[in-house]
Amino acid sequence: MKLPSNVNIVEVGPRDGLQAEARFIPTSKKIELVDALSRTGLRKIEVTSFVHPKAIPQLRDAREVLSGIQKRPGITYSVLIPNIRGAEMAIEFGVDEIRIPVCASETVNQRNVRMSIDESLESAGKIHGLAQEAEIPLEVAVALAFGCPFEGEILPEKVISMIGRLHDTGITRVSITDPAGIANPAQVRELTELLLETFPDTAFSLHLHDTRGLGLSCVLAALEAGLTAFDTSIGGLGGCPFVPEATGNIVTEDLVNMLEEMGISTGIDLQELIRCSELAQDIVGRSLGSRILKAGTREQLFQSVAAGT
Amino acid sequence: MKLPSNVNIVEVGPRDGLQAEARFIPTSKKIELVDALSRTGLRKIEVTSFVHPKAIPQLRDAREVLSGIQKRPGITYSVLIPNIRGAEMAIEFGVDEIRIPVCASETVNQRNVRMSIDESLESAGKIHGLAQEAEIPLEVAVALAFGCPFEGEILPEKVISMIGRLHDTGITRVSITDPAGIANPAQVRELTELLLETFPDTAFSLHLHDTRGLGLSCVLAALEAGLTAFDTSIGGLGGCPFVPEATGNIVTEDLVNMLEEMGISTGIDLQELIRCSELAQDIVGRSLGSRILKAGTREQLFQSVAAGT
Repeated sequence: MKLPSNVNIVEVGPRDGLQAEARFIPTSKKIELVDALSRTGLRKIEVTSFVHPKAIPQLRDAREVLSGIQKRPGITYSVLIPNIRGAEMAIEFGVDEIRIPVCASETVNQRNVRMSIDESLESAGKIHGLAQEAEIPLEVAVALAFGCPFEGEILPEKVISMIGRLHDTGITRVSITDPAGIANPAQVRELTELLLETFPDTAFSLHLHDTRGLGLSCVLAALEAGLTAFDTSIGGLGGCPFVPEATGNIVTEDLVNMLEEMGISTGIDLQELIRCSELAQDIVGRSLGSRILKAGTREQLFQSVAAGT
Repeated sequence: MKLPSNVNIVEVGPRDGLQAEARFIPTSKKIELVDALSRTGLRKIEVTSFVHPKAIPQLRDAREVLSGIQKRPGITYSVLIPNIRGAEMAIEFGVDEIRIPVCASETVNQRNVRMSIDESLESAGKIHGLAQEAEIPLEVAVALAFGCPFEGEILPEKVISMIGRLHDTGITRVSITDPAGIANPAQVRELTELLLETFPDTAFSLHLHDTRGLGLSCVLAALEAGLTAFDTSIGGLGGCPFVPEATGNIVTEDLVNMLEEMGISTGIDLQELIRCSELAQDIVGRSLGSRILKAGTREQLFQSVAAGT
């Protein structure tokens, strides 16, 4: 089994997770969660989004959250933005990193940002220019790369072509996303191998949702293809506005447990992460989908049985 | 990605799943579940256990269940037995297949059957003799092959040595089990490759619990090693008496969905299986861990969105 020795995990719970919550989460609670996550060893946290407050009311406190958190050296506090206006605000504010989504589905891209894919790719190029001037790194998320609830299958050729256009404008940080949770491991293996081969100078990451329980097996398939960066969400916070019954992203602590058990280093303290998961549950006021929070690690099982508890 | 074209799934929910239920499930409900499972395309169902009613009161109706089900041609209705006494009863009754567990952990083997591993292996040889005379196939489950809550790590050498002794007595159907849900994909890949290499004439199957959410990724690792038979439980019924907070086996319908999405044939009708999962939930009176029951398949998502629902 060809496996990497290290993996980078990007925590997206404060943005992708919390934005799916109907009830407004107090700003102080969001700050508390990001600060707790900052103590785990995570090196990148997607904190919030510069988006119109009517589009996502939950994230209307983006500036307050970013100003309130205790930034730790070595951690990138990333922000999602939907368009040039958002990028300008993020740059003016002085964020660490900008992430922008472009959907591989024409239908969803129109719904999300009222632009065609072509227009979005052009816009991404312009944002890249602005970000470069400001010396702020930019990552583009090619969303719905594994299929779209509205359009069905998305061909790898389409994804390749989109990333090719991004590459032409100098964008070499790309995330591939499956918010509908419909990717399978064979598909992930095939697409990631193709992408890593076609764009050897691009840094790819994979953003999976665990709706059908295939998240961690898709990670395994991607690891074997050579991909080493994954978006995850603490406790499995989150969902997808277009997908009924969708669960959230893959669970940060469950992935860290899997990787560390396999001897792959994440640099993250799993016990600290489990405390963050408890905090996330407290904040949203319900039990989330974390397995490790419920069952504990293998080591904890051994210790508790040895102690006769 | 080297993958098999076909996989055999053995449904163990009626035995391994239901035996973890505290409340007695009426015999008629057990029969209804097995009959429903018989209509899905499954080729083997572990129905019940010939075990002392004091040990597992839930399965005290083994004979009634086996007599009450409508057996379909082409399906093996398997029975778990703990010892020679159970084997004699099963043979006398005329079951289709006998499965016996031998723990790779001395501690748990003593607790379960009050024998040492040595004695259990010897007993398995004797049971094999009885089963052969009666022309009833026998499978031995090497339980806790990936680690034991009481003893910690279980070395592959120990598992190899146990299977070697079984092989010497002519037993060439072996299941490898992880009731504590502590296996990881790298470990599964390593052990299954080693076993398939060492015992090329043995038919191996893998019995995983999804306690830490790694079940399906462990299946993927085993598939890549060349293993093609898996125990699963409808709806994820079940648990483990020694493991606090243990969830059940990996979920039958979630595995079938993963495999079929990957282009691997199971011969099973997923929609029929989802109806069985609803029935299993009705029978135990609570929601189980099935993802596909909750979220539906990718195809169903495409259809429901297309229909505007």
